[in-house]
Amino acid sequence: MCGIVGVISQQPVNQLLYDALLLLQHRGQDAAGIVTGSGSKLYMHKARGMVRDVFRTRNMRALPGDYGIGQVRYPTAGNAESEEEAQPFYVNAPFGLVLAHNGNLINAVALKRELFTNDHRHINTESDTEVLINVLAHEIERRTHGLPLSVDDIFAAVRAVHLRLRGSYAVVALIAGHGLLAFRDPFGIRPLCFGTAGESGEVMVASESVALEGTGYKFERDIAPGEAIFVDLQGRLHSEQCAAEPQRNPCIFEYVYLARPDSALDGVSVYRARLRMGETLAQRVISVLPPSEIDVVIPIPESSRPSAMQLAHRLGRPYREGFVKNRYVGRTFIMPGQAVRKKSVRQKLNAIGQEFAGRNVLLVDDSIVRGTTSREIVQMAREAGARKVYLASAAPPVRYPNIYGIDMPTASELVAHNRSVEEIRQIIGADVLIYQDLDAMKRVIREINPEIVEFEASCFDGCYIAGTLPPDEGKNRGEGVAPNTGRLSLQGAEEQGQLS
Amino acid sequence: MCGIVGVISQQPVNQLLYDALLLLQHRGQDAAGIVTGSGSKLYMHKARGMVRDVFRTRNMRALPGDYGIGQVRYPTAGNAESEEEAQPFYVNAPFGLVLAHNGNLINAVALKRELFTNDHRHINTESDTEVLINVLAHEIERRTHGLPLSVDDIFAAVRAVHLRLRGSYAVVALIAGHGLLAFRDPFGIRPLCFGTAGESGEVMVASESVALEGTGYKFERDIAPGEAIFVDLQGRLHSEQCAAEPQRNPCIFEYVYLARPDSALDGVSVYRARLRMGETLAQRVISVLPPSEIDVVIPIPESSRPSAMQLAHRLGRPYREGFVKNRYVGRTFIMPGQAVRKKSVRQKLNAIGQEFAGRNVLLVDDSIVRGTTSREIVQMAREAGARKVYLASAAPPVRYPNIYGIDMPTASELVAHNRSVEEIRQIIGADVLIYQDLDAMKRVIREINPEIVEFEASCFDGCYIAGTLPPDEGKNRGEGVAPNTGRLSLQGAEEQGQLS
Amino acid sequence: MCGIVGVISQQPVNQLLYDALLLLQHRGQDAAGIVTGSGSKLYMHKARGMVRDVFRTRNMRALPGDYGIGQVRYPTAGNAESEEEAQPFYVNAPFGLVLAHNGNLINAVALKRELFTNDHRHINTESDTEVLINVLAHEIERRTHGLPLSVDDIFAAVRAVHLRLRGSYAVVALIAGHGLLAFRDPFGIRPLCFGTAGESGEVMVASESVALEGTGYKFERDIAPGEAIFVDLQGRLHSEQCAAEPQRNPCIFEYVYLARPDSALDGVSVYRARLRMGETLAQRVISVLPPSEIDVVIPIPESSRPSAMQLAHRLGRPYREGFVKNRYVGRTFIMPGQAVRKKSVRQKLNAIGQEFAGRNVLLVDDSIVRGTTSREIVQMAREAGARKVYLASAAPPVRYPNIYGIDMPTASELVAHNRSVEEIRQIIGADVLIYQDLDAMKRVIREINPEIVEFEASCFDGCYIAGTLPPDEGKNRGEGVAPNTGRLSLQGAEEQGQLS
Amino acid sequence: MCGIVGVISQQPVNQLLYDALLLLQHRGQDAAGIVTGSGSKLYMHKARGMVRDVFRTRNMRALPGDYGIGQVRYPTAGNAESEEEAQPFYVNAPFGLVLAHNGNLINAVALKRELFTNDHRHINTESDTEVLINVLAHEIERRTHGLPLSVDDIFAAVRAVHLRLRGSYAVVALIAGHGLLAFRDPFGIRPLCFGTAGESGEVMVASESVALEGTGYKFERDIAPGEAIFVDLQGRLHSEQCAAEPQRNPCIFEYVYLARPDSALDGVSVYRARLRMGETLAQRVISVLPPSEIDVVIPIPESSRPSAMQLAHRLGRPYREGFVKNRYVGRTFIMPGQAVRKKSVRQKLNAIGQEFAGRNVLLVDDSIVRGTTSREIVQMAREAGARKVYLASAAPPVRYPNIYGIDMPTASELVAHNRSVEEIRQIIGADVLIYQDLDAMKRVIREINPEIVEFEASCFDGCYIAGTLPPDEGKNRGEGVAPNTGRLSLQGAEEQGQLS
Repeated sequence: MCGIVGVISQQPVNQLLYDALLLLQHRGQDAAGIVTGSGSKLYMHKARGMVRDVFRTRNMRALPGDYGIGQVRYPTAGNAESEEEAQPFYVNAPFGLVLAHNGNLINAVALKRELFTNDHRHINTESDTEVLINVLAHEIERRTHGLPLSVDDIFAAVRAVHLRLRGSYAVVALIAGHGLLAFRDPFGIRPLCFGTAGESGEVMVASESVALEGTGYKFERDIAPGEAIFVDLQGRLHSEQCAAEPQRNPCIFEYVYLARPDSALDGVSVYRARLRMGETLAQRVISVLPPSEIDVVIPIPESSRPSAMQLAHRLGRPYREGFVKNRYVGRTFIMPGQAVRKKSVRQKLNAIGQEFAGRNVLLVDDSIVRGTTSREIVQMAREAGARKVYLASAAPPVRYPNIYGIDMPTASELVAHNRSVEEIRQIIGADVLIYQDLDAMKRVIREINPEIVEFEASCFDGCYIAGTLPPDEGKNRGEGVAPNTGRLSLQGAEEQGQLS
Repeated sequence: MCGIVGVISQQPVNQLLYDALLLLQHRGQDAAGIVTGSGSKLYMHKARGMVRDVFRTRNMRALPGDYGIGQVRYPTAGNAESEEEAQPFYVNAPFGLVLAHNGNLINAVALKRELFTNDHRHINTESDTEVLINVLAHEIERRTHGLPLSVDDIFAAVRAVHLRLRGSYAVVALIAGHGLLAFRDPFGIRPLCFGTAGESGEVMVASESVALEGTGYKFERDIAPGEAIFVDLQGRLHSEQCAAEPQRNPCIFEYVYLARPDSALDGVSVYRARLRMGETLAQRVISVLPPSEIDVVIPIPESSRPSAMQLAHRLGRPYREGFVKNRYVGRTFIMPGQAVRKKSVRQKLNAIGQEFAGRNVLLVDDSIVRGTTSREIVQMAREAGARKVYLASAAPPVRYPNIYGIDMPTASELVAHNRSVEEIRQIIGADVLIYQDLDAMKRVIREINPEIVEFEASCFDGCYIAGTLPPDEGKNRGEGVAPNTGRLSLQGAEEQGQLS
Repeated sequence: MCGIVGVISQQPVNQLLYDALLLLQHRGQDAAGIVTGSGSKLYMHKARGMVRDVFRTRNMRALPGDYGIGQVRYPTAGNAESEEEAQPFYVNAPFGLVLAHNGNLINAVALKRELFTNDHRHINTESDTEVLINVLAHEIERRTHGLPLSVDDIFAAVRAVHLRLRGSYAVVALIAGHGLLAFRDPFGIRPLCFGTAGESGEVMVASESVALEGTGYKFERDIAPGEAIFVDLQGRLHSEQCAAEPQRNPCIFEYVYLARPDSALDGVSVYRARLRMGETLAQRVISVLPPSEIDVVIPIPESSRPSAMQLAHRLGRPYREGFVKNRYVGRTFIMPGQAVRKKSVRQKLNAIGQEFAGRNVLLVDDSIVRGTTSREIVQMAREAGARKVYLASAAPPVRYPNIYGIDMPTASELVAHNRSVEEIRQIIGADVLIYQDLDAMKRVIREINPEIVEFEASCFDGCYIAGTLPPDEGKNRGEGVAPNTGRLSLQGAEEQGQLS
Repeated sequence: MCGIVGVISQQPVNQLLYDALLLLQHRGQDAAGIVTGSGSKLYMHKARGMVRDVFRTRNMRALPGDYGIGQVRYPTAGNAESEEEAQPFYVNAPFGLVLAHNGNLINAVALKRELFTNDHRHINTESDTEVLINVLAHEIERRTHGLPLSVDDIFAAVRAVHLRLRGSYAVVALIAGHGLLAFRDPFGIRPLCFGTAGESGEVMVASESVALEGTGYKFERDIAPGEAIFVDLQGRLHSEQCAAEPQRNPCIFEYVYLARPDSALDGVSVYRARLRMGETLAQRVISVLPPSEIDVVIPIPESSRPSAMQLAHRLGRPYREGFVKNRYVGRTFIMPGQAVRKKSVRQKLNAIGQEFAGRNVLLVDDSIVRGTTSREIVQMAREAGARKVYLASAAPPVRYPNIYGIDMPTASELVAHNRSVEEIRQIIGADVLIYQDLDAMKRVIREINPEIVEFEASCFDGCYIAGTLPPDEGKNRGEGVAPNTGRLSLQGAEEQGQLS
């Protein structure tokens, strides 16, 4: 997963993009990058690391200009050998383009071959972002050969891009000297919205509404699936639907744990969605367990808190924060000739004994992926003195990998893959294990915004609406459906300066 | 405020001290330092910054050995001109000593003069820690002139130290080739406890019990006020009461917000103390405001949550987390010729509109110090649509500065200094303002551990049990009682390597 | 001025390029860059600074591959406001190209405009290297639209490039997955040669022969003016004359002080050229000053030593190294409220008193540019006790700026601009001032390689064989002929990683 | 070997000490350190590396004050396991002392034991400098117990120090709030001199006169063997002979290659000494080889140049610089799975073919230590076409290790150890090998300053005037006489800030 932002302003935008990336930092902690534009000149700095570490004063000074884009990228799950790159990417022809995206292309390998053979465009990395920018570049180039660039050309190019790409992509791009382009794949899998500030001409596009509000921008609306918007340097906004049959299928995992609770995506407050998931989960709990059997409801921090709170409320049982999260995370150093202390969930969480001692506790987590953390937490609860440990997951069983841009293990690593709930319960060691109901979850979120007809919920239902990876690539990565992630990172690297 | 840790092990301790400092990081983010010992050789690395930034692989490799101490230090409030130093400190005679402490000496200036005139001991910094280590060094030296060091000598020296020092101090120190010494001032103002691990000979001393438990150590007990413990390199533990009239007067602010909720200090679970404060605060709320007037109770993150939860429970009103904290904090860069975006509480907190809109909200904070943040938050709540905004403080009015090691503004900066609650309410802009009752708070904490007769609560009651600063120094720092903090930091500096 | 190198090998080339750049470091100390290729993938690291500082282990590890190019760049004379960039530059279409050059294009501004208007190629910097790579890219692209790249296409493209560019340029470039291209402008102003190693397929191209010999390569020959060579990944070398009327006009300043004495350029050993300049200078000295009036000949280190030695030999006077150069150069730090010690030539040179005391000394310098250093040195010689101070310059008067890639002040800063030798002598304060004779210098160098018909000697004679800057740009930079240097540097920057 | 400097000024001294250390950089490139004092406060920064790399702006800003000392240290030959430390060292009692030295104590181990047992002074490193400062501290402390410090106390302490230390030591030290102390061992093995600047009260002490002259100080005189000088903060200079039977025995190697040619040590201009060595070497050459057999005299850069020049002059043969030194030195990177290019003398030197081709060349080096470099150079000369290669060494055969502070291999690594000249010649591969005559060398240097009665020349004659290492320590390091160097370095470390 990644977070992206773009802005057109009449003021310097470096601090603004930096602040926005901090607000999106939860979407990616592996790498960060900013490109700014001043007139027709572009300035870039990108490197691996958190926003606060990547951007120093000297980097910020080297990012002048009043329009720009930025990105934060999630850690790469993939193999360490693979080459890694940070975003945004740059190509100098036509016009000078930079682009960052959130998502994952499933036909990147084929597109790369096509680009080289037909267009002699060299793709130097394994990143699907580099493929994406070159497809866009090529489509703009074909339409503008020797002619000035019009807004119609841009939208026509995006239309062609939609026809060539498969997968998920929410995109921000700059066209040097022209403006900011943003678009979203025809299924709207990854979120993208925009807002305005000031009296005129200040437009910001971002993955989540919290980036707008936290920087003083007023949320205007989500960008529709398939839609493109172009904002010129004067701040004039143009928009057009560029997909033939767009369909709103937002990724349901955003509501489960990816997005911040104070964001609203596709018309749905994430916080509200989580409260609702607490309610439907409560119904599932009641169907299995009399509330009187539960002494206390304890969330597993952080994102399960709203659901757990509402669940407790519905059950009429006390809600208590029995786990304290260790906020300051360090490293394990490899010392020659020195044993490495085993890292465990205990270095992230600490149980407050009195909330567990002698009680039947209902632990609530947002989801269960590998199951290893859940097992450790259940064990911790027992060691803290719990009599019975019940575990409820605010999400349904995660049974399938994600190929649309979420960093998730392969199928065989998922505890729920090919296992019954009872089998999972035994592995995790809980006395009772309760999962959310997928249909109920979809229903209550849809109630908040009835325009959402369907969700991208492939992790739960195995239905890959935007296509699957070709068999070869799948095999490479295990179980045939693992993603060619768009989150490949730049190894030990730092890139800065004017683009060259 | 600071966090300190010391350990005697039979294994390398660098990673262990690092992990323990991370668990104490909330007690000080300004600087960090570790000293390890191998045989009679000592190794140090200290620098300004957070633990994760101060210690890199190369630094950890240069910290071999199986015993050591560490410290994290709070940001300095003082003037930027003053020289700054990180802990621990080292003196090479007698025996080679390193020392770190948490607290503040109020007679440091007089001691420094005494040390130079009588003992020709040069104090090179403004840090009271350097004074403390030299007093200790001198007292050990006088007792061991040319003779081997005995445990009795050490405790005799600590006894003499208690007679010379005034103020608060919880201390860990290494004596090269001999072992780990820890002691606490006769009033026990700052916390200190120890635990053990393994079958024999693994002892850890730390500011808070969470550092023990989070690193796999078993909490044994608090070190008593005035008590000293000495653990030799084989792990044999010796202890002795070294103060004439020790008296347990722990700092009550630890329970309000300094310590982690999952720690227990002087026999009192911090979490439990906060729940109790929620209860007594509930009584105060009820006496002012019918619960029916309150639609929702909303904590101001982080440390007020347990109190707010319990308060809501007692009032029978819903508890909702209406504020989301921005976890990733960045900087404001000063760019030449570029306006600086005003930083405000909004960059730290975000309100979830639906929890405020049209409601009467009771906000709960752990304490109110300057009042500026509270005013902004009240304003945010109103802008989020709250009909009425009530504010409750889980601590009583903060009316006096702290001179025993808590970083706190001078009296004139405290919103409650010389002001009535009504005056404060007007400044803050709340519809109702409710403060904790000091006696009730003391009573409920004392109920958890009846051995605590009195608290150091000078911020609230102005009673300075361990003496006040001399008038001259007070004046320098404003209003006659400001501290010569023990938190002076090392300017732009990094120190590493063997001690030299 | 810059130094460039390119290599095709069957082994990793990162260390090899690094070593070669060190041997060319005298040609540019401002920035350094390396690009390597492995298969069709390219890896780059470039930054400001000396080679030893720019490349750390982590950077070298990120430069795998068995072919590559590198560059070192001279400090920029230009205005500090202008944007700066390091070399090499990259464009991804067609095929993926990287390029570095030594020289200066005088029609860069016009070309840039042309590239954007006709080809929509965005030039993001002020560097003429970026213009050059885009012209080359465009010329290759036009010839290969959708077709595989042939060697003929490459040479045809270079032929077209020669027609479009004006100025001086010695170029190394990589075509990803194809090989190494090198070419030299039709006047051969900047040097370029190549050599081979091993039994087959190891080819290195470099600015100076010393880079070949110092890395174990055998010098083969200079690349001819206008000639291009292309070496494919198997090491097969192709060459072709690509200019209509090539003419060998090497820059005469290379022999005066730019090149290393142990290099041979265009068939002329630099060391030998300098000895010869010493001989012709001796004739000029004799015509003015009886050798008996000279007690000792003292070179001003470093590059004047061979000339001075031969001059002394011819005069039959003792040669002594009366000045010691301070090898370790530091900085002057600006400290708040602290006076800055005046930096002078004395911090670079130290006189050995006994070689000056009571003597008539003939100082020999390689050339006199601004005259300020010469004046200081004459003064130092007098303070060291010299009775008479004569100064001889191994180069003729420098009267005009250089626009072909040498970092030189504008005309008005040159002490010899519009001044007679007597006027210059008075400014410098020497008792006698003797200059080299331009025709004699040309003659003796030409004698070493009679194929050289003419030299680029515009600094001395004002004759700009490859054209002058357009009036507008000239004006911008003072006196109508100042260069749009190809040495623009990357500000405070570091770029690394795979190209993106 | 090391370089040391100390200064008392009425102005900030950070830049001054930095500039002086640059002028002494040839005496040690491994580590550098500066301590400054302001009033009674001391500030330190030291780290491994060259001066230009160790001191950044932020470090210089943290070095305020108007008196100070500095040091540069030579690379450690010793084993990598041993702990390493940078200078200066600090102890806080009595008064606050910092100290740096050049030399080597041969009884450091015994002193360390004594210091711990009798005085409980902890020595935390293997550095003899830490021993030295503690001996000095102890001797000052005993004399001043509780009393103010007088100049007489200081000199009395130095007198006692002379009685306890064995070996070579030139020392600069600060006494916080009091002044600058400098002294030299009773044999005056390592050099030390002082100078003054301004009208009053500016005194600088340094290893070599060039540091004084290069920073604008006027050389006053050498400090005599056994003498101590003390300069108080007002610049008043006190001096006293503190040794019972001082004797001037300067290290003869300083004249051979350690010192800069533009320095004068113990009344002898190094440059002049080298010229003289050229003359005596000429006599040795003539006795073996008719000058007519020699076509050209070629120095091996750098320090042999004056001797070679004078030798050529005496022989009446041409002097030519046939080798060019590569000024820019880089590293060899260890790359996983990549062969390391063999480093050789060729990466440091390059031969100019025409000076060798077909000629009988006489190469002149300053000395021959291991012989490996000489062999390579002889080989290079042959490959460059020399007909005959004669080699002359301006120093006599190096047969014994140095234990007084010069970094030199153990006996078995010395090519001349237990070998005849003919055997050495065969190893090196020269056609003729000619060595300097030790007596002649001593004689001509003594002629320049007749006060020098004898030289420390143990490398040549095996006579260790200041004692030898105890057998145990010798054995550890091979062949019974290897040094416990005072040049132990701080590994990967950086220390800065106020002393603590």
